[in-house]
Amino acid sequence: MMFKATLAALLLIASPALADELRGTGDLGLIVEREAGSLLVVDRSERAALGRIEGLGDLSHASLVYSPDERFAYVFGRDGGLTKVDILTRQMVRRVVQAGNSIGGAISDDGRLVAVANYEPGGVKVFDAETLELVADVPMGSKTVGIADAPGSRFVVATWDTGEVWILDHSTDAAQPAVTKLEGIGANPYDALLTGDGRHYIVGLFGEKGLVQVDLWQDPPKVTRFLPDYGKDLPDLPVYKMPHLQGWTLAEGLFALPAVGLHQLLWVDAADLTEIARTDLAGQPVFALARPDKREVWVNFAPPDNDKLQVVDVLTHEVLDTLTPGKGVLHMEFAPRGREVWLSVRDEDRVEIRDTRTREVLGEIEARAPSGIFFTDRAHRTGL
Amino acid sequence: MMFKATLAALLLIASPALADELRGTGDLGLIVEREAGSLLVVDRSERAALGRIEGLGDLSHASLVYSPDERFAYVFGRDGGLTKVDILTRQMVRRVVQAGNSIGGAISDDGRLVAVANYEPGGVKVFDAETLELVADVPMGSKTVGIADAPGSRFVVATWDTGEVWILDHSTDAAQPAVTKLEGIGANPYDALLTGDGRHYIVGLFGEKGLVQVDLWQDPPKVTRFLPDYGKDLPDLPVYKMPHLQGWTLAEGLFALPAVGLHQLLWVDAADLTEIARTDLAGQPVFALARPDKREVWVNFAPPDNDKLQVVDVLTHEVLDTLTPGKGVLHMEFAPRGREVWLSVRDEDRVEIRDTRTREVLGEIEARAPSGIFFTDRAHRTGL
Repeated sequence: MMFKATLAALLLIASPALADELRGTGDLGLIVEREAGSLLVVDRSERAALGRIEGLGDLSHASLVYSPDERFAYVFGRDGGLTKVDILTRQMVRRVVQAGNSIGGAISDDGRLVAVANYEPGGVKVFDAETLELVADVPMGSKTVGIADAPGSRFVVATWDTGEVWILDHSTDAAQPAVTKLEGIGANPYDALLTGDGRHYIVGLFGEKGLVQVDLWQDPPKVTRFLPDYGKDLPDLPVYKMPHLQGWTLAEGLFALPAVGLHQLLWVDAADLTEIARTDLAGQPVFALARPDKREVWVNFAPPDNDKLQVVDVLTHEVLDTLTPGKGVLHMEFAPRGREVWLSVRDEDRVEIRDTRTREVLGEIEARAPSGIFFTDRAHRTGL
Repeated sequence: MMFKATLAALLLIASPALADELRGTGDLGLIVEREAGSLLVVDRSERAALGRIEGLGDLSHASLVYSPDERFAYVFGRDGGLTKVDILTRQMVRRVVQAGNSIGGAISDDGRLVAVANYEPGGVKVFDAETLELVADVPMGSKTVGIADAPGSRFVVATWDTGEVWILDHSTDAAQPAVTKLEGIGANPYDALLTGDGRHYIVGLFGEKGLVQVDLWQDPPKVTRFLPDYGKDLPDLPVYKMPHLQGWTLAEGLFALPAVGLHQLLWVDAADLTEIARTDLAGQPVFALARPDKREVWVNFAPPDNDKLQVVDVLTHEVLDTLTPGKGVLHMEFAPRGREVWLSVRDEDRVEIRDTRTREVLGEIEARAPSGIFFTDRAHRTGL
């Protein structure tokens, strides 16, 4: 009896570390199951699901970032929940409901801090990545959007109500960031992106036309307005969705970006911020993502064309292929070196895996109304 | 007694997977200990060594690549040895001596194949990444140099004796690559590099002046000669070492490259391949590496200036800082998002870790005459 009890205890202790759990984490990923409030843990190499982490609350528009060791993910839920999960043990580690309504987050380049941009009550809260204890609370008198990690333990964020960009520098003191505030950016920033080198922060405006670029390499940061007609109302074609700026891409010195309310992709010279070409598309673009080798841009669409994908040539700006993976293609995630792409086909409860060159279907994984797909290599990239 | 025996058995089974072994692999790395024929396994987050893997043979000029899961490394030794090591268990998994003398290797973007470029007997051998069984033997009638992984399960390599570039395409059949051969590249290619997007393969020539760029996006690939004076003999200043082309970097549309035999860094416009600026340096540059945010280029030097590092501004091309870490600074490796840099200080048997912004020393690790430092995020990058 004593033997049995001891054996059971030993097995319990050993169970989180069974031999099949000893594995690298460079080829893992998480898929957001929005309706179910769960995350599917996937293995890229096996093209298979490993398990599920449940109970994450409201995951509409959820996003996540990874710890530098690619073991933990920080999940930002729309309900203000910040959840840390362990993808190796597939368990929730910690969860705090840190606000009433939040819109996204970022992890500092040293992996020590996680910041969340909040709608309600607004501002940014910064947490210790290990413990999720509150480190800094930075009210900004506004809802905040487009938070990103800039190099040097900094976070950059835009304020919806006041039209500002704030740079929080945590490099000398985690609890008391040095704040740089840029005023007069424009009316109602609704989203923003930081380029992969951490140099350019680009802000989309809801309250007026045009876009704003902040060059973080200059001191003080240099603010430039560009594309003065971007977002112009077109009454004959309703805008189903303002495109997320994370749907932009930078390839070969060009930005490829979805045109608001148009069936077009815009090509903008990154050096002088002028439009140089347009590509006609099969619908209203949502994400325009460069394949990691930058040779092609892959585009998905708003309803009613969200069953399609188009592949556009970066050199010629011509559409190379039109694919029809299925109903509700919400998100695309490329393998880090671009060999394959994973597609969320929400309305068919599955993720489809395609070869990025032959376009052939390589595999399929069942998932509950999948939306965002996040591979662990994101841990090593800036501006996500 | 039976209880004790069972307990011992259970502990044995559990030992390869002790709790402290269950960990992510995104923040690990390997440091080559050239004289000792060993690898030091390091943890970036802890700034500490975890252990050592021994018995790898001749590791002069050794390099390595990682499996997509960031668990296994493939080490290319000068003695023709190809060794697969497990960085989690810190054990050698397999080792084959596949040639008499080899110069480097690469892993395909799907992680299935490992290719080795050989001096003796020449050509390229391709191995199954799982088993290290020979998959393809491609004799080329020449020593081979500068092998790199190109997107689409391809390898690119240059031939020293015959002045060619070969592209091996394994996308349809691993055992029988489709071969594209480019002849008349130039006399005696001695090294080559592939840009991070996999587009441009740049070949250095020993037998004549100038450099060659192969644009792999064009069909057929387009060959361009440039910098016609690069490598020109300068009798008043002996060349201690032909700079490795892996010491080049691409930042903000510019190549920064070490000038052969000169105390200068050359800046070349990547679009038209013309020289646009030079920066005077403290010695003969060996590696000129961009910090991951591309804001600065860090340079180390050949003897007698190999105790120094210089940091150069990418916008102004001016030297910002001159550091003196110690004797024999052989290699620099940046954390993936650039927060810190690790430096091999060979002649002082240590690795020094510095903050890339304040330049302060953050830590130090003992190592036996360390040379190359390789972090696991390389698994996700092209052209390494």
